[in-house]
Amino acid sequence: MSKEIPYKIYLSESEIPTAWYNVRAHMKNKPAPLLNPGTLKPMTADELSAVFCDELVKQELDDTTPYIEIPEEIRNFYKMYRPAPLVRAYCLEEKLKTPAKIYYKFEGNNTSGSHKLNSAIAQAYYAKKQGLKGVTTETGAGQWGTALSMACAYFGLDCKVYMVKVSYEQKPFRREVMRTYGASVTPSPSETTEIGREILSKFPGTNGSLGCAISEAVEVATHTPGYRYVLGSVLNQVLLHQSVIGLETKAALDKYGVKADMIIGCAGGGSNLGGLIAPFLGEKLRGEADYRIIAVEPASCPSFTRGTYAYDFCDTGMVCPLAKMYTLGSSFMPAPNHAGGLRYHGMSSTLSQAYDDGLIEARSVKQTDVFEAAQMFARIEGILPAPESSHAIRVAIDEALKCKETGEEKTIVFGLTGTGYFDMVAYQKFNDGLMEDYIPTDDEIKASLSKLPKV
Amino acid sequence: MSKEIPYKIYLSESEIPTAWYNVRAHMKNKPAPLLNPGTLKPMTADELSAVFCDELVKQELDDTTPYIEIPEEIRNFYKMYRPAPLVRAYCLEEKLKTPAKIYYKFEGNNTSGSHKLNSAIAQAYYAKKQGLKGVTTETGAGQWGTALSMACAYFGLDCKVYMVKVSYEQKPFRREVMRTYGASVTPSPSETTEIGREILSKFPGTNGSLGCAISEAVEVATHTPGYRYVLGSVLNQVLLHQSVIGLETKAALDKYGVKADMIIGCAGGGSNLGGLIAPFLGEKLRGEADYRIIAVEPASCPSFTRGTYAYDFCDTGMVCPLAKMYTLGSSFMPAPNHAGGLRYHGMSSTLSQAYDDGLIEARSVKQTDVFEAAQMFARIEGILPAPESSHAIRVAIDEALKCKETGEEKTIVFGLTGTGYFDMVAYQKFNDGLMEDYIPTDDEIKASLSKLPKV
Repeated sequence: MSKEIPYKIYLSESEIPTAWYNVRAHMKNKPAPLLNPGTLKPMTADELSAVFCDELVKQELDDTTPYIEIPEEIRNFYKMYRPAPLVRAYCLEEKLKTPAKIYYKFEGNNTSGSHKLNSAIAQAYYAKKQGLKGVTTETGAGQWGTALSMACAYFGLDCKVYMVKVSYEQKPFRREVMRTYGASVTPSPSETTEIGREILSKFPGTNGSLGCAISEAVEVATHTPGYRYVLGSVLNQVLLHQSVIGLETKAALDKYGVKADMIIGCAGGGSNLGGLIAPFLGEKLRGEADYRIIAVEPASCPSFTRGTYAYDFCDTGMVCPLAKMYTLGSSFMPAPNHAGGLRYHGMSSTLSQAYDDGLIEARSVKQTDVFEAAQMFARIEGILPAPESSHAIRVAIDEALKCKETGEEKTIVFGLTGTGYFDMVAYQKFNDGLMEDYIPTDDEIKASLSKLPKV
Repeated sequence: MSKEIPYKIYLSESEIPTAWYNVRAHMKNKPAPLLNPGTLKPMTADELSAVFCDELVKQELDDTTPYIEIPEEIRNFYKMYRPAPLVRAYCLEEKLKTPAKIYYKFEGNNTSGSHKLNSAIAQAYYAKKQGLKGVTTETGAGQWGTALSMACAYFGLDCKVYMVKVSYEQKPFRREVMRTYGASVTPSPSETTEIGREILSKFPGTNGSLGCAISEAVEVATHTPGYRYVLGSVLNQVLLHQSVIGLETKAALDKYGVKADMIIGCAGGGSNLGGLIAPFLGEKLRGEADYRIIAVEPASCPSFTRGTYAYDFCDTGMVCPLAKMYTLGSSFMPAPNHAGGLRYHGMSSTLSQAYDDGLIEARSVKQTDVFEAAQMFARIEGILPAPESSHAIRVAIDEALKCKETGEEKTIVFGLTGTGYFDMVAYQKFNDGLMEDYIPTDDEIKASLSKLPKV
């Protein structure tokens, strides 16, 4: 083992980034704008302000400013759990007998259990600053809802969470964490909204989906004075906030003179991957360096690898703006796999554009293969990973094993977005040998894609 | 806010202690030796070797060597999750409007969720080195069992865990974490041991207790070739390993020229408190500095504040050696409170002696007061604490509020031993306003104390 690079590279608090990096500023082909579903014209700031906080609307639409300052209040909150460590996976390398050098950026060392807190605190801050009373949101795996509950507790905001029903049932304790932080949690679809009632009558017994929970949360936000809607992924603003992950990762690597060969992240809506790769993609766009960037998605919800690049609704209820993205169609209902955070039908517009431009690769992996990697990682590296994060672990291990064959000493960096403490129902299934793989048929995907809006 | 001291003080990996500190070496009144329950004579190394690994027996009996080297293999494992941060609770201070300065040593940033891993990895290492096949143990809250499972997975040892029944039921997912790490988990009392069957027939429907689970684990270890028993608290060897907490804490404080006025830790068997205070108690013993040291225990299991200092059995089945300690009597069955790790009838001999010598204070706190502090801490400091750890939080807050009254700028250091992610049943009860306080009557305590062995 090389003794020069520590197991964990911790930056000091003074090295926490003071500005987020807005990779759109350096993209030649900008991500396509959100469209008003009625007029099919780009959404204006005014239109977006009915749904989102004003300052966040600005960030959403800004594709020219490369660096946006992080307000001091947010940086102070970051100091409670950041900088996050960049870990050299010495034990994993040794176990795999690979010449590859493996690093992971670990975002799980906070109570929300994931990177989601990075954007939650920013969005709560701007809501508070605007004098709002509260925010609404949806949550899939529960990580985003927990993060937002924590952020709202910190700033004294009310927090209403719509939680995808299958996660609500699989993760009863997630709900209690959110309640401990003072949030209200409703399983979605619910009877509390018009769209929820509609979906329930059309699909009784549905497991719910992120797209459907979004519709409910947006409906409540736009119908309750003093409330706005906040979202934990997909949006440009979220990727902007999450760039703190990549900036810290790059600073830590630079500190030790390490150049990454490939960067791997799981991708559901794209918040973690977009944040992790931001500064690396920036270098690539500016021609300063080259990296392989690999997005990993579940075979059960393969928006990059089997979807289409087109305008689509962001939500099942079709009340949100249209976004151009790789999508399986907003009516796609993924099977109830155990990576709840990766069950979204679409993908961030920014990442979709980068993927379409060939700047990013994508790979889909099966659930059982993912849990095999998760268990191995837990035993060797001592961290029980979230199912979502384990998609990246799977491909990192696969790539390290390829290096073993070829003898190449590649440097692999992956995002370990969170911990699996609230995913023990999934681990139990795996431990008991009862886990199954779900892969949608071509016909299923074709069916939901046939319902794409005509733009 | 002072900007000089960061929110989190991280030592570098090279500052991880290279030797454990054995505070017994500096105690004038040594902790009383373990006695053979048959002969009532001090247990010899030979006798102890039937139960414990040889090297650990040496450490158990050594009360003269002040520093014992930490083997490199263990230090390498420590690097996966240590040094643990010493956190300045700026947000809590601000919220309480106290002139006190509050620090906490956070041991929850690892998958076992607590400080227990510090001793688990040491005990697993010595078992492996001795060529054993596996180890047995008991677990209360599940933190020790999880830690040991992780340590055993790392060294490829078999791991059999007896889990106190009430915790097994309250924390179903703890079991799955242990299984994910390859351990077998049995609720105690169980039908798998002689002593388990005996207890079940005497007390059908019992919630179990640590003392009873210990009996079962010891029985299996001593009846299975190639196995030894390991214990997560109470023993001298465990406090020795846990001194890494205190050594890091002291090093971090020294680095910033901070002198603690009081050190607060929760106390069940004493592993966390003993480890946290070791170097501070050492200074106190050597007359180099003075500190207030406060042990906090649940009002439902108050061994220091309402127990007796006497020889007692360490386990309910009375198969283990006798230890001189503050005890409620080995037949004491604590009410099913939610701090499973603090439900032990006795207390470490080392801490018992220090308490008897007036070097340590003790305080008992009610469960509902503890959860009120836990919720407050979670919302303000962003970490969801374990119920056990929250006992220390309660008293730290109380002391900080006293400083507010008196205007004293005291420096308070407390041990935040772990996270509460697997304690959501307890939090749910608290969130729903259904939590109750259990306080044993004088008669109950008198009854179990009347059964102390005659020594």
